[in-house]
Amino acid sequence: MIYLDNAATTKPSEAAVQAAHAAMVNFGNPSSLHGAGLTAEKAVEGTRRIIAQEMGVKAKHIYFTSGGTEANNTAVFGTAYRLAPRGRHVITTKIEHPSVLEPFKMLEKKGFDVTYLDVNSDGVVNLEQMADSLNENTTFVSVMHVNNETGVIQPVEQIKEIIRKKSPNALFHVDAVQSFGKLPVQPLKWGADLLSVSAHKVHGLKGTGALYIADGVHINPLLHGGGQQSGVRPGTENTAGIAAFGAAISEFDTSVAFSYMTELRNFMKKRLIDEIPDIKINGSDRYSAGSVLNASFIGIKAEILLHALEARGVYVSTGSACSAHHPAPSHVLTAMGCTRGEIMGAVRFSFERAVTIEDINEAVDIIREEAARIPKIR
Amino acid sequence: MIYLDNAATTKPSEAAVQAAHAAMVNFGNPSSLHGAGLTAEKAVEGTRRIIAQEMGVKAKHIYFTSGGTEANNTAVFGTAYRLAPRGRHVITTKIEHPSVLEPFKMLEKKGFDVTYLDVNSDGVVNLEQMADSLNENTTFVSVMHVNNETGVIQPVEQIKEIIRKKSPNALFHVDAVQSFGKLPVQPLKWGADLLSVSAHKVHGLKGTGALYIADGVHINPLLHGGGQQSGVRPGTENTAGIAAFGAAISEFDTSVAFSYMTELRNFMKKRLIDEIPDIKINGSDRYSAGSVLNASFIGIKAEILLHALEARGVYVSTGSACSAHHPAPSHVLTAMGCTRGEIMGAVRFSFERAVTIEDINEAVDIIREEAARIPKIR
Repeated sequence: MIYLDNAATTKPSEAAVQAAHAAMVNFGNPSSLHGAGLTAEKAVEGTRRIIAQEMGVKAKHIYFTSGGTEANNTAVFGTAYRLAPRGRHVITTKIEHPSVLEPFKMLEKKGFDVTYLDVNSDGVVNLEQMADSLNENTTFVSVMHVNNETGVIQPVEQIKEIIRKKSPNALFHVDAVQSFGKLPVQPLKWGADLLSVSAHKVHGLKGTGALYIADGVHINPLLHGGGQQSGVRPGTENTAGIAAFGAAISEFDTSVAFSYMTELRNFMKKRLIDEIPDIKINGSDRYSAGSVLNASFIGIKAEILLHALEARGVYVSTGSACSAHHPAPSHVLTAMGCTRGEIMGAVRFSFERAVTIEDINEAVDIIREEAARIPKIR
Repeated sequence: MIYLDNAATTKPSEAAVQAAHAAMVNFGNPSSLHGAGLTAEKAVEGTRRIIAQEMGVKAKHIYFTSGGTEANNTAVFGTAYRLAPRGRHVITTKIEHPSVLEPFKMLEKKGFDVTYLDVNSDGVVNLEQMADSLNENTTFVSVMHVNNETGVIQPVEQIKEIIRKKSPNALFHVDAVQSFGKLPVQPLKWGADLLSVSAHKVHGLKGTGALYIADGVHINPLLHGGGQQSGVRPGTENTAGIAAFGAAISEFDTSVAFSYMTELRNFMKKRLIDEIPDIKINGSDRYSAGSVLNASFIGIKAEILLHALEARGVYVSTGSACSAHHPAPSHVLTAMGCTRGEIMGAVRFSFERAVTIEDINEAVDIIREEAARIPKIR
């Protein structure tokens, strides 16, 4: 098996699995006053410190959630509703993950004025349009760091600069689900007021994410209940998933991950372009996170290629996994101006550190054979 | 260690740990179209069937959540807001878990008319008051099945009968977090339109819960994102936690659990009453789930007894774990009319099938000694 679908989910690392196991054995409720509770609480707080350290922030600003979707929903709803008395204009991009886009669509239904920013053909957000859109009613801007379908990095620091100039009171959220653990994620440097991450994209478990909330930023919680996590996110903590998240992140060196994955991506890209006729790479070399290579096999329905590759042990995806069961033309590639044929034939290859150049060579050999075998749609 | 804090959280069963481990190894994203995704999806759907079977409902009516808190929040907010155009009167009780009570307080802030029903000294909800409260504007009623602090069973079937007579269009939610896997939980028999459960109270993992939503009942989702779980609860499923939940529930025989825990409770209760001066049992024998024994050690601060017992290897709790770090007089015992001294001295002992009569004997010996050693407040 050559697994090239790491943007959908990654294999939990051995350390993550062991940490989860330890948390299952030391099974106390972190809120309990006795020793069994304390052991569980320590595991939770240990991961909070690890996540915070990786971001260069204080541990008390990290709140655990049930995953990237809840972190993104909490950031968007929690901020937009909180700041609604100050203004009802909010901004995002056309290429966000559904867990950001759908909450913005809900805000629109609730009477908010929403600007969905365009991207250029490289998949990079339009900064002039952003500058033009920001106004005195703008309270909230949400832009992803790395796009999940193309791996394109968005200029989050520049975006914050523009926000500072035009709408200094607006809060800025960054969805860093696809970059955390792969690239440096630096909310203080970027000026991000909120930032979402997910464990299972970086060799932790599904069901765990975290939201960074900057000092002095207050949001309306999405969940209400016991006082856990200062009431910002109540509910008994997912101790196994949280312990595994910390163990997984401890193993990372983002600078190494970035350069290695970029090497894999560039190598695969070159071979695909050299050896496959009618192929188009979607995204940008200059702004690539390295973790994703999105390629359109013109004249081929991507799903057919996916299943042909699967039969040979190569796992890839068409677009993002989250919406795989609800096929619709990729909103990301559509926003980038790709043609219908390019969108129909788009396959996402996504990497992790355990993927080797040999894996890529073997995968490309199989891709070339299978792509040649599938009758083309003209 | 004698762990008598099973209402806070339980030890994951061996089968649950193994199932979680298998889900970590077979790590696909349930939404992925390829085989790795399919394996993960099968594990999720397997648990959905197990939970549904245990409740006697169809699998498609079960939605996984991040736990009891999210299930309860989704039920309360999702129903009340959805039905707001039809009416803004909602009903709950004074003894609900904070993950139900706090959402109702939020609804109150949003202009809903909320009735908080009283309970009698046994801790059973006042049915006359309920009948009097229901009116043509009542859209939603939420009552727990088993109280987390006292183990008292609420008459959910009778409650639904009253709702049917007085407000036939109102929807009925049951928080069954403390009973699922311990007592028969039968939403169809009870006429529950929504019902919440949690995995970690029944030897599964923290971070997994489920919400049953009856046929034809539509709610406003709390989370918005990818189309997972028909959009009712999007977000990548917590595959390890869900697999463990199914494995844990598969092992249960609720009728055996109930009679065995009732035996433990009655045995412990008798010894405590016989051997400890100034003790009062809170709750009701007649309506007890057997899983909880709540006892007030008059003249003793419960937290001091808790730590004294902990030093001897006996783990108990004061009130519920969820609010242990935010000490306030128990709202449950307050609603039952307990005195300040009874509330201050209240300790919760909660059981599971692996607790033995020998454990109880040893625990009571230690409790008697420690309670005698602590200087009484007069």
